[in-house]
Amino acid sequence: MKSSPAELISEAKSSTQNSKMKRAVSVLDFILRLIAVVATLASAIAMGTTDESLPFFTQFIRFRAEYDDLPTLRLFVVASAFASGYLILSLPLSILHITRSSARRTRVILIILDMVMLTSLTAASSAAAAIVYLAHKGNAKANWFAFCQQYDSFCERISGSLIGSFIAIPLFIMLILFSALVLSKR
Amino acid sequence: MKSSPAELISEAKSSTQNSKMKRAVSVLDFILRLIAVVATLASAIAMGTTDESLPFFTQFIRFRAEYDDLPTLRLFVVASAFASGYLILSLPLSILHITRSSARRTRVILIILDMVMLTSLTAASSAAAAIVYLAHKGNAKANWFAFCQQYDSFCERISGSLIGSFIAIPLFIMLILFSALVLSKR
Repeated sequence: MKSSPAELISEAKSSTQNSKMKRAVSVLDFILRLIAVVATLASAIAMGTTDESLPFFTQFIRFRAEYDDLPTLRLFVVASAFASGYLILSLPLSILHITRSSARRTRVILIILDMVMLTSLTAASSAAAAIVYLAHKGNAKANWFAFCQQYDSFCERISGSLIGSFIAIPLFIMLILFSALVLSKR
Repeated sequence: MKSSPAELISEAKSSTQNSKMKRAVSVLDFILRLIAVVATLASAIAMGTTDESLPFFTQFIRFRAEYDDLPTLRLFVVASAFASGYLILSLPLSILHITRSSARRTRVILIILDMVMLTSLTAASSAAAAIVYLAHKGNAKANWFAFCQQYDSFCERISGSLIGSFIAIPLFIMLILFSALVLSKR
């Protein structure tokens, strides 16, 4: 395979451009992971520390709501904390990709793990969102009562906690797309 | 860049092997898409046709449960049908990848769309699963009543409908991984 000098130069140029692009994407990957760590961790902590006691009680009953009265919200805390832990562990690999922009195998591994975490985080977050929606609106046909009318600040807190995870989900999608983009360049 | 004849031959061999591998993966991609179409469509139809009337009624009340008494289940039907429609539309691209195994850009497009569908299907399915779980178990602390004790066959049907979508979710994950695998080969 003989190439003319001009061809060789243009090849070399495009390969430098490619590796610059790859490095830029890797840096972006690292930054997105940092943001996602903060978002999922904030979500887990905010949800995990939620409880409310109403300011009145009888001799036998205290009106108290805790996040783990609803098992789905407990799942949400676990999944968010897990995603956050995974993201922290993936940071060294992300740094490796900045220094060695041609790495392919580790990127494929990261795509697989990112996708598993994306799916589990999405599943837990939307299950929690379905329950939070029910807490707000109730369902007249199923006779499910909207308890948010009483537990006002509890409900505000569990709704707010969802935000972090729903920020992390598109970040995960972008992380996977960036890895696929880099892989698609020769 | 001069190469010896032996190098050229080994290069050509490995590129033929690669293109064979890519074609095999593309055929697998097509088959998985077909299975996923059937699974999501079955899910949407099974859920969308679910209703039950209890065999007793008063003058004013008929005891009747329909899937769209629960808004989350309506979302599930829409998302499953949408995923199924998308999968059917993606079949031509999948066929294109079998005949042109070196296509890269269309694979990246397919990865992006697959991921969006994976996320929306996962979100809708797990929200539906959370509600179906509630219908079965109820929640004593929130005073939510497990209506499955009455609407037995209704509950069986909505639980069964989830299966199709939860089969399609790992299929989507595999589709994305296969595309990433092909992209990672030069």
